[in-house]
Amino acid sequence: MQYKAIKLVKRPNPDITADIFATVHLPLPALDEGQFLVRQTHMSLDPAMRTWLDEYDDSYLPPVQLGETMRAFGVGEVVESRNPDFPVGARVLGTTGWAEYVLGSADMRVVPQELPVGDLLGALHLPGLTAYLGLMEIGRPKAGETLVVTGAAGSVGSLVGQIGKAEGLRVVGFAGSDEKCAWLEQELGFDKAINYRAADLAAELAAAAPNGVDLFFENTGGPVQEVVFQQMNRLGRIIVCGVIADYNKHTPSPGPNWKEVNLKALRVEGFVVPDHFDKIDRMSKALLGYLQQGQLCYRLHTIKGLESAIDGINMLFDGRNQGKLVVEL
Amino acid sequence: MQYKAIKLVKRPNPDITADIFATVHLPLPALDEGQFLVRQTHMSLDPAMRTWLDEYDDSYLPPVQLGETMRAFGVGEVVESRNPDFPVGARVLGTTGWAEYVLGSADMRVVPQELPVGDLLGALHLPGLTAYLGLMEIGRPKAGETLVVTGAAGSVGSLVGQIGKAEGLRVVGFAGSDEKCAWLEQELGFDKAINYRAADLAAELAAAAPNGVDLFFENTGGPVQEVVFQQMNRLGRIIVCGVIADYNKHTPSPGPNWKEVNLKALRVEGFVVPDHFDKIDRMSKALLGYLQQGQLCYRLHTIKGLESAIDGINMLFDGRNQGKLVVEL
Repeated sequence: MQYKAIKLVKRPNPDITADIFATVHLPLPALDEGQFLVRQTHMSLDPAMRTWLDEYDDSYLPPVQLGETMRAFGVGEVVESRNPDFPVGARVLGTTGWAEYVLGSADMRVVPQELPVGDLLGALHLPGLTAYLGLMEIGRPKAGETLVVTGAAGSVGSLVGQIGKAEGLRVVGFAGSDEKCAWLEQELGFDKAINYRAADLAAELAAAAPNGVDLFFENTGGPVQEVVFQQMNRLGRIIVCGVIADYNKHTPSPGPNWKEVNLKALRVEGFVVPDHFDKIDRMSKALLGYLQQGQLCYRLHTIKGLESAIDGINMLFDGRNQGKLVVEL
Repeated sequence: MQYKAIKLVKRPNPDITADIFATVHLPLPALDEGQFLVRQTHMSLDPAMRTWLDEYDDSYLPPVQLGETMRAFGVGEVVESRNPDFPVGARVLGTTGWAEYVLGSADMRVVPQELPVGDLLGALHLPGLTAYLGLMEIGRPKAGETLVVTGAAGSVGSLVGQIGKAEGLRVVGFAGSDEKCAWLEQELGFDKAINYRAADLAAELAAAAPNGVDLFFENTGGPVQEVVFQQMNRLGRIIVCGVIADYNKHTPSPGPNWKEVNLKALRVEGFVVPDHFDKIDRMSKALLGYLQQGQLCYRLHTIKGLESAIDGINMLFDGRNQGKLVVEL
């Protein structure tokens, strides 16, 4: 019996084109003692994948090597096992890959059968941990402060805003369509959502954040960045989760001058989840608490079949996805 | 009897020209109960003064108003007193102004007669507190890390580098002349000093910091900033103390893109001393300790007469000063 996997065969330059991937058919592996085989049912597509495609020395996770199966996180079912902790039939979550079948990996854990895929791959996994870590541990908000989130309709941004509301913040989001803005305001409880294609972004933001901006959770980069930066309050915190608009560029656009960082005593801080594994239990518990109290809503955007990931990954960068992007296998 | 004072009468646009100041002659004031009169003997000129000249809402200290005496810190002698805590003959340190005589201010304190003016206005006052706060409290260095300081021959930068050496760091400085670089290496013990007018700054820095840069104490802005930024290590800290090169510009030059802030989990943080008054006792004690162990050397650059401040303030921005700039009255 054979299964399909997708390997990385070229580096993006800088766009992610279909020819950087190759689909291969592989025989199912024989298991050694302690191993188990997982049939992947749902695979997560995340913006962080973009950084794994480049040859980049300093990143927290090594780049995917040419000829390797592309890395992913996913959910699956154990179909064969020589490991008593992962019996046949168990549902598992962890690092998988762009493949229909994968060997069990070191970070896999058994998860309840009844939890929705969106909870598992969204609120309780990378997007949720990223949102909580950035906002709560890096940003250290105080109730009553004003939070601005870019990429607010994305899988991380939408959770950041909802955690912000749960923690008593005024929350303003930027998103890429009026439809997304309506969803943020009406379904997720954002105080205000602004279409970043609006004519006068500075005026819109000033109206939405009359007391200025204390926390800026940055997911996108692009022209909105300077607009928000200019309206930061003294002692404001800028959480740099990503600059999606700049990943697919040979020469990223410049950032703000640091004069205001000095004068306003701002803190601009980046972070990546793997540096904070020591906090994962605490963070997971907090996220589960929000979920159980109904404070975190999300949308799943499901695409079908392993090879849909090849175009699907680009949906994260051109804004075509409507919520957490998941490949159903 | 009359004394001279210098008032701010225009805002810089953006250069500091002589006509933004006006010298006036004023009668000595009569003292109310609790007041005391100080003859200023030494007045400090500091880069922070530039920020007080602009009408700027968000700064930690209010701008100097038009028609007001320009603000300064200084040392003086009490010459008349209706306050038993500040008897005639006492030596005092604190907020004064560009004036030969000033009324005692709320932040003035009595200081020992025997301490050199350079200790008082340098290592133990604004430059020393700024250096210590930025490097130790904001930067949180670990012995063995590599520190880069720009404006390294300035009053703050030279102390930052020396504190860095005292704390076991590898210290690389950027300064504006070969003479300053020789002083940093030979007198202050910097591991390496680089003339920022050198041809290939990136190669010079890579050679001086072979393990990359963990801490970047930024005083100047300008082209060096991007060079250092590119060589930051993961989890590096950038302490934004000032961007002198950008203060006197209508449109400051852009800063680095935040992609690396995200990927390398950098922290870029500004600070101003008045936000940290709660730490001043502890910091002063630490600075006195370095001084007593001979770990802090400095150069005083003395200019004479109150009106020498009008040109003197520009020496801070065009690099003409050779050490801590003090006006002797």
